[in-house]
Amino acid sequence: MSKTAYVPPTVWHNDAPSGGQFASINRPTAGPTHEKELPVGKHPLQLYSLATPNGIKVTILLEELLALGHSDAEYDAWLIRINEGDQFGSGFVGINPNSKIPALLDRSATPPIRVFESGSILLYLAEKFGQFLPEDLAGRTETLNWLFWQMGAAPYLGGGFGHFYVYAPEKIEYAINRFTMEAKRQLDVLDRRLAQSPYLAGEHYTIADIAVWAWYGQLVRGTVYSAAQFLAAHEYTHVQRWAEVIANRPAVKRGMRVNRTWGDEPNQVPERHEAADLD
Amino acid sequence: MSKTAYVPPTVWHNDAPSGGQFASINRPTAGPTHEKELPVGKHPLQLYSLATPNGIKVTILLEELLALGHSDAEYDAWLIRINEGDQFGSGFVGINPNSKIPALLDRSATPPIRVFESGSILLYLAEKFGQFLPEDLAGRTETLNWLFWQMGAAPYLGGGFGHFYVYAPEKIEYAINRFTMEAKRQLDVLDRRLAQSPYLAGEHYTIADIAVWAWYGQLVRGTVYSAAQFLAAHEYTHVQRWAEVIANRPAVKRGMRVNRTWGDEPNQVPERHEAADLD
Repeated sequence: MSKTAYVPPTVWHNDAPSGGQFASINRPTAGPTHEKELPVGKHPLQLYSLATPNGIKVTILLEELLALGHSDAEYDAWLIRINEGDQFGSGFVGINPNSKIPALLDRSATPPIRVFESGSILLYLAEKFGQFLPEDLAGRTETLNWLFWQMGAAPYLGGGFGHFYVYAPEKIEYAINRFTMEAKRQLDVLDRRLAQSPYLAGEHYTIADIAVWAWYGQLVRGTVYSAAQFLAAHEYTHVQRWAEVIANRPAVKRGMRVNRTWGDEPNQVPERHEAADLD
Repeated sequence: MSKTAYVPPTVWHNDAPSGGQFASINRPTAGPTHEKELPVGKHPLQLYSLATPNGIKVTILLEELLALGHSDAEYDAWLIRINEGDQFGSGFVGINPNSKIPALLDRSATPPIRVFESGSILLYLAEKFGQFLPEDLAGRTETLNWLFWQMGAAPYLGGGFGHFYVYAPEKIEYAINRFTMEAKRQLDVLDRRLAQSPYLAGEHYTIADIAVWAWYGQLVRGTVYSAAQFLAAHEYTHVQRWAEVIANRPAVKRGMRVNRTWGDEPNQVPERHEAADLD
């Protein structure tokens, strides 16, 4: 216990000093901050996103669908600059009231259908096109088990480990230890599973692999958080093997470049409206 | 910046002092710690759980299904004492390799199907019985949007806010502010949505309401974390209205008592094997 123990107030008020890289976009209220319509392109699927781990889940799946010849998976990918508050515009909030990327509008339905939360978008597209989700009940269920696992696990990695290890203005030992322990436990969960089967749900690559790879595959490859050494990522050999197989898929390489505004210039494709944008 | 700034090591090792109420069950590795078969009852559905917010999602849904006359939703609910490490037994890990409650085994399939992650279990049962999940694509999608929202949001409430406000051995001001801000933002997301429609996905009560109510409905009613005053929960009037409607459903009252080992004695039903256990 520190000598100057903090005592929370009876009722919390938003008078804390701001903290960390994303402090400017964190707030205790929801809803739009300004009126702004979203652009609409020519394809039925309109994606509003950014190439974060949650964002690339969807662009990878769309590129996988296109690689299989599903021409009706053509999409317009519009850039949402989260550090500039695009996610608080009225048009975006109308599609995702939670103000997070990615958000999808399927204009092939009348009226158009909004889809938010990356896991919901993956399931929606997998069911729409009948791909990357086994049709038998056992395979479908195991895929969804791991898809939901990712949704519940990654906040500890992103909002916990990543925040306190990378972004928080001060290194808080207790919080780093708490979330590092959990990140390593999660990696071990995956490693034990991938010792049993080539992919998370069994023999086949599914939306569960896409969702988990975007966070944990990138984590062990050091492309998110530069924490591979800190986490001893090389010890998770089955995760490493699986992560490399997926990283080498052409659709994964394409999907990762969409809505990207950092890194090597050739890999920056801020907007995508046709295949040629990535060729 | 504090005067004695913490510098994380190059490679993390598990030598930190343990912290908080659940320290004894947190660890950086996965897998079973001991051999232990799970008990199996007479019904096709075998549930292994505890009456936490994630646990009651499933027992509420099962009681709702039984209330509608789905006699094949009869279930055995076995107690998993997480503070005693039941979730690390080999039998439990075989159903949920993530060692978290709830876990479900559907023995009506051959071979039996394992279902883990509360969101996955809710979706599995909703599809199995054709209830609490709209059949039209728009309604189904909006329900799944909010179901996935809950899965991605609640770790900030449980693993973030709840941990640092209630359980952590020291009150860390930065962490409490970070997660309180997010908890209030999430409540405002729900409040704005529930200003538009009686339930999250529209006119009808769905698995999204069950999932979100278990965390946020209980939060505003003060039955998790005793934080209603701290969060000014009375300000979220639409959430309050919705939370009360759901709390008054008979199946919700029944489901909340299953696998419960604390609180008023009449509400403690550690195991449930037939309707009479709750009557």
